[in-house]
Amino acid sequence: MLEVEQILCQMTLEEKAALCTGASAWTTLAIPRLGIPEMVVSDGPHGVRRVTDVQAVGAKSLPATAFPTASCLSATWDRELLREVGAAIAREAIALGVDVVLGPGNNMKRSPLGGRNFEYFAEDPYLAGELAASYIQGVQAQGVGTSLKHYAANNQEYQRLRIDVRVDERTLREIYLTGFEIAVKKGRPWTVMCAYNKVNGTYASEHRYLLQQILKDEWGFEGLVVSDWGAVVDRVAALEAGLDLAMPGPKARFTQALVEAVRSGRLEEARLDEAVRRILRVVFRAKATPKGGQFDLEAHHALARRAAAEGMVLLKNEGLLPLKNPQRIAVIGRSARYPQFQGGGSSNVNPTRVDIPLEELRRLAGEAQIAYAEGYPEGLAEDPGLIEEAVARAKEAEVALVFVALPPAVESEGYDRPFLGLTPQQEALIQAVSQAQPRTVVILNTGSAVDMRTWIGGVGAVLQGWLMGQAGAGAIADILFGRVNPSGKLAETFPLRLQDTPAYLNFPGENGEVRYGEGIYIGYRYYEAKELPVLFPFGHGLSYTTFHYANLRCPPRFKDTEGLRIAFEVTNTGQMAGKEIVQVYVRDPQASLPRPPKELKGFAKVALEPGETKTVEIELDYRAFAYYHPGLKDWVAEEGEYEILVGASSADIRLCQTVVLEATQDWPSLLNEESTLREWLQDKRGRGIMEPFLEEMLPRIRAAFGLEEGETFIGMDLMGFLLDMPLRSVLDFQSEQLPAPPEAMVQELLHRVRGVKRSGEEHRVL
Amino acid sequence: MLEVEQILCQMTLEEKAALCTGASAWTTLAIPRLGIPEMVVSDGPHGVRRVTDVQAVGAKSLPATAFPTASCLSATWDRELLREVGAAIAREAIALGVDVVLGPGNNMKRSPLGGRNFEYFAEDPYLAGELAASYIQGVQAQGVGTSLKHYAANNQEYQRLRIDVRVDERTLREIYLTGFEIAVKKGRPWTVMCAYNKVNGTYASEHRYLLQQILKDEWGFEGLVVSDWGAVVDRVAALEAGLDLAMPGPKARFTQALVEAVRSGRLEEARLDEAVRRILRVVFRAKATPKGGQFDLEAHHALARRAAAEGMVLLKNEGLLPLKNPQRIAVIGRSARYPQFQGGGSSNVNPTRVDIPLEELRRLAGEAQIAYAEGYPEGLAEDPGLIEEAVARAKEAEVALVFVALPPAVESEGYDRPFLGLTPQQEALIQAVSQAQPRTVVILNTGSAVDMRTWIGGVGAVLQGWLMGQAGAGAIADILFGRVNPSGKLAETFPLRLQDTPAYLNFPGENGEVRYGEGIYIGYRYYEAKELPVLFPFGHGLSYTTFHYANLRCPPRFKDTEGLRIAFEVTNTGQMAGKEIVQVYVRDPQASLPRPPKELKGFAKVALEPGETKTVEIELDYRAFAYYHPGLKDWVAEEGEYEILVGASSADIRLCQTVVLEATQDWPSLLNEESTLREWLQDKRGRGIMEPFLEEMLPRIRAAFGLEEGETFIGMDLMGFLLDMPLRSVLDFQSEQLPAPPEAMVQELLHRVRGVKRSGEEHRVL
Repeated sequence: MLEVEQILCQMTLEEKAALCTGASAWTTLAIPRLGIPEMVVSDGPHGVRRVTDVQAVGAKSLPATAFPTASCLSATWDRELLREVGAAIAREAIALGVDVVLGPGNNMKRSPLGGRNFEYFAEDPYLAGELAASYIQGVQAQGVGTSLKHYAANNQEYQRLRIDVRVDERTLREIYLTGFEIAVKKGRPWTVMCAYNKVNGTYASEHRYLLQQILKDEWGFEGLVVSDWGAVVDRVAALEAGLDLAMPGPKARFTQALVEAVRSGRLEEARLDEAVRRILRVVFRAKATPKGGQFDLEAHHALARRAAAEGMVLLKNEGLLPLKNPQRIAVIGRSARYPQFQGGGSSNVNPTRVDIPLEELRRLAGEAQIAYAEGYPEGLAEDPGLIEEAVARAKEAEVALVFVALPPAVESEGYDRPFLGLTPQQEALIQAVSQAQPRTVVILNTGSAVDMRTWIGGVGAVLQGWLMGQAGAGAIADILFGRVNPSGKLAETFPLRLQDTPAYLNFPGENGEVRYGEGIYIGYRYYEAKELPVLFPFGHGLSYTTFHYANLRCPPRFKDTEGLRIAFEVTNTGQMAGKEIVQVYVRDPQASLPRPPKELKGFAKVALEPGETKTVEIELDYRAFAYYHPGLKDWVAEEGEYEILVGASSADIRLCQTVVLEATQDWPSLLNEESTLREWLQDKRGRGIMEPFLEEMLPRIRAAFGLEEGETFIGMDLMGFLLDMPLRSVLDFQSEQLPAPPEAMVQELLHRVRGVKRSGEEHRVL
Repeated sequence: MLEVEQILCQMTLEEKAALCTGASAWTTLAIPRLGIPEMVVSDGPHGVRRVTDVQAVGAKSLPATAFPTASCLSATWDRELLREVGAAIAREAIALGVDVVLGPGNNMKRSPLGGRNFEYFAEDPYLAGELAASYIQGVQAQGVGTSLKHYAANNQEYQRLRIDVRVDERTLREIYLTGFEIAVKKGRPWTVMCAYNKVNGTYASEHRYLLQQILKDEWGFEGLVVSDWGAVVDRVAALEAGLDLAMPGPKARFTQALVEAVRSGRLEEARLDEAVRRILRVVFRAKATPKGGQFDLEAHHALARRAAAEGMVLLKNEGLLPLKNPQRIAVIGRSARYPQFQGGGSSNVNPTRVDIPLEELRRLAGEAQIAYAEGYPEGLAEDPGLIEEAVARAKEAEVALVFVALPPAVESEGYDRPFLGLTPQQEALIQAVSQAQPRTVVILNTGSAVDMRTWIGGVGAVLQGWLMGQAGAGAIADILFGRVNPSGKLAETFPLRLQDTPAYLNFPGENGEVRYGEGIYIGYRYYEAKELPVLFPFGHGLSYTTFHYANLRCPPRFKDTEGLRIAFEVTNTGQMAGKEIVQVYVRDPQASLPRPPKELKGFAKVALEPGETKTVEIELDYRAFAYYHPGLKDWVAEEGEYEILVGASSADIRLCQTVVLEATQDWPSLLNEESTLREWLQDKRGRGIMEPFLEEMLPRIRAAFGLEEGETFIGMDLMGFLLDMPLRSVLDFQSEQLPAPPEAMVQELLHRVRGVKRSGEEHRVL
């Protein structure tokens, strides 16, 4: 933008420094003499939290539609729906005078206890990245900006402003960055928000490797990096690292620090200019969309209802749902009357209206009598009397609908959940009601997985209603009465118990650090690798109809750079129209580094009338087969066989085919001074050198040990003993007989390996 | 030693440098002109592997008693027996002309797949440390040296010469160093052998923190540090770090490197002198014991038999054992005829004789007919015919004794076990035999835990015979026929399956690194924390009699520095004399850092006649209650309640009492710039400052947020939101209204905390 450069060269050092910190809690600095307008940002991501007073962090906000939270939106697995919701939020932002909506949140659900899981999409980075990208596209197509957050590894609330996440490079890349990478590359967000926490010893706000090298240089992010509110500790270090805009403001000392740093030479002015340039580009881009006007409350409420219905997951159903026209219904549980439709914290929206489940049920129940019992008191209080009353209502009815939501004191931004279950009163309530009334349906309004061990066996159906947004009550009624066929599927595993969860012994850390000891094995990657039973697997969700999968077609061989296009057919074999979320996993049965048993690499949501068949086509690109190699510092898709697994959930694979990837990449040899004999023999170039070398050497080693061929060496299998030794050490056994010291011989062999011609350029493909 | 200093000052630089590397594979350099003799070292640790030719690493060795391996010795839980075995080995060393026996091995059994687990004591550092110390005491009391190995974190064979162990400080201290610490402090070994692997990026042979700072400076180790054979990569770096003696020799280039390093100034000569001094001290100490003579083969063989019988563990017994005078016995399995009594590698002894189980059984069986069937072929081969034959023999008999040992190709030094089970043929054999003969006893000769899922349910008894030494066959016969009442207990958990093991997803590492992601949770610490069922718990072992525990007496309060003396009574309530291993665990129900559910801190082995009662007294010192705090860099026993748990195994606690520890230590405050509000309130000194400060601040924060008391802040519980924030960030919400920047206010408060008078000195107690 020419305009930006013209303005930049007219700005004083003080003006530039001042622009890099907010002017208020929610606005950037306006500089009227240069025509730089202020930019208004506002919390999101499932609704606009436009505060009435931009000076106050905690100010009240203007009414806006509270759409379903990410916990529910992600369970839709519906890219187009995410775009629709994003577009609606953008229209509200325009009406409310907001330039940039602070969202979507795209951190991984590392532990189900994470307080902010309800704002995040998934335990799988591919699913999360795809949905985040769609949401961003939806918002930004309307001319409103987004802020992809919290970059990176903000996977807990406990000590989030200071915890140091200790995570290895491969895990960071494959699990904690991939969702951001997809969202940045496909969604092109105007802004990215850095996380509060440290990553491997450095604050995310001061993390040059994350902000500058990976996000900006490697992924090509052109927008601005904004701090999470209060995440900046050292303003100069943050700017050096690539943090463009510090929020909230005003903070005169930040501006002063930048000015002094440039004057003293600690900070190059060119780096400050780069931040200013990025900020100005977004500010002017924002201003291209005029703000003001109205939004369509009714249409957005209806969209919120539709989205909620698409995301709710029917977890269990022993034929109880949809309801078969019962005449006496017991509705039990406070959340039927006081719905828990969103969570606490920055995403908390002042809703335009809130539908009440009890009322929505009455609206659809026709002639049926509906009796209500509160069931449990507010918060963590206990009241056995409420359970007795609920049991009485349940006994009188033909069916009991039990609504349960966790109290905000245990599920919110700002703190992690202290336990995985419901509250003791809620668990006792469900047990008592289901004992009195076998036809009991539980409707859960929680933002994450719940331990159901004490009661799941006794109830006939469970509907996961999530934190469902202001119109979710209607969606529940629609599903219970069969007006909508449920189609949501889990974006997170529901474990049997907390002790089974991947991060259990490493969450939320100690002494200021949290070790990601489970590595790449989070979510279903862990449960499958450990062969642990779960309550409901990743990708699980029931329907009122049934689907049949058939006729998987994949080319048997493909080139890595060209990717693979697969096709298969899905048929609605039941009596009701419905939607099926089809999932494509890739399994790499043999790789140089250990890999999870399978990983999600494609999905689609397919609407089918009864009897209808559709063909689904899915593209699998290079990355669908690749893992991140920390030695090569790049994504590697190895030559060889892969299994393409098509399923209705991670645990319900319906179709499978083996394909062969032809590698066109020519990776540099990783052989070095420490490489083992096995590594030499496995290396494409090393093998040719080592095989004849070994043939010569082995008899000499046997002679040195005084062994006949096939004889063990002090009880050890000789090759077993040698194979995982560095070549240097193998040579060392006869070092006094060698023509040169072992180190020199290894160097000589390495020269020979490296001298082998390598074809082509290194090549990265997303 | 005056002599040492006198010699040292007469040595040339070249002589000093040369002394720091072996003169041969098994000897140090003799310098006749100065009267420095050579010192002969020899592999151990459960027998002397005195090679016939010290020039050859792989040379054949002279006959010596093959005592039971550590897998069996540790299951005795008998300090005195370890001393007896150590003394016997020392007597053999003297007879064979050996100055230092290279052992004991004292690494933790991190994964049951570790190829060298059979040479290591336990999955618990206290048990391992106590047994290693006893063994060392036994050997050294005879005037022969030991080499405590492999220091540190050599917990796998895969890539052991180059793997980089990534382990955090607390885990290193509590799990991987404590066993060495106890053995060094209580056993005072003449030498310690460094490990092959790297620890957090640095070779153990070059690890100044491990060798110099912790081992020599902190623990006061006065002996010499020797390299594992071939562990030295950079001789100068190793010497700088505290590695005194590099083995094996000769390696002229090592000597040359040291000479050049001193000449060039890279290495201070004083550091070289220190290494020489340590070597000379051990050399002269060794020479004080004249070598030669004979050892008592018969007595040592008998001791080996007794030790084996003490260490064998009766895992399961449905009344089948001791054998009730059967007249037809089927003995099945190759290892009844070709006993697997030791493992491959450096510990491999040339036995003075080897008892054969089949023969020992015949010796004790009286008139009974014994039929033998091979059952499985050598190695991993399969032969269904052998199973058919075994089934036939089993059907004809009243009882089947199935002997199974893993082939050396899957259990040895040099490589890790590829699977946790027995071989497919062995599993099929046991299944088939036990189906044909319900009275089936399995005798296992493995050096570590085995997956028994496919067959454990069908057999009547299982005796874990370990790698039992040359006289183990007689011990098996003694136990089966009831001549010895079994009394061994497991020093390692037997898991149900490999997937359940703590290191499963982090073993054996990738790309040259192995992450100890499970942290302090190894062995029973993991299974208990994860509440995972196991096959046989740590500390488990059956007897032919029964024991009753009673009358636990602990003082209700005690001072940390004084420790705690507890007493309780054990009674033999059965019909046979027997020995009971009593175990004392400590549980810290509430600590500043997470702790395992319980940890072993005391044990004893008690011999009891039928009806006899003995009082057991056990001392629990400071360390029995302490954990390692990585922030304080010291061992912390926190004020408050602890549970003293007395049991027959980790899963079979018989007595329990709560005691109160009075802390006399005055730790420095850990509060710093990043400390959270919760940490301020929990700090002994911070609390007094923070409570009034908070009382003043909270209303101001509420006002800044426009909240009434008790009202939530955008749906969040306010205190929940604030408590785990750094104080700096809490202040930042009102930073523009504060008298000073938040950072400055925090500094001021920290000054006040640090100004609070601290009493006494820091105090470490083992």
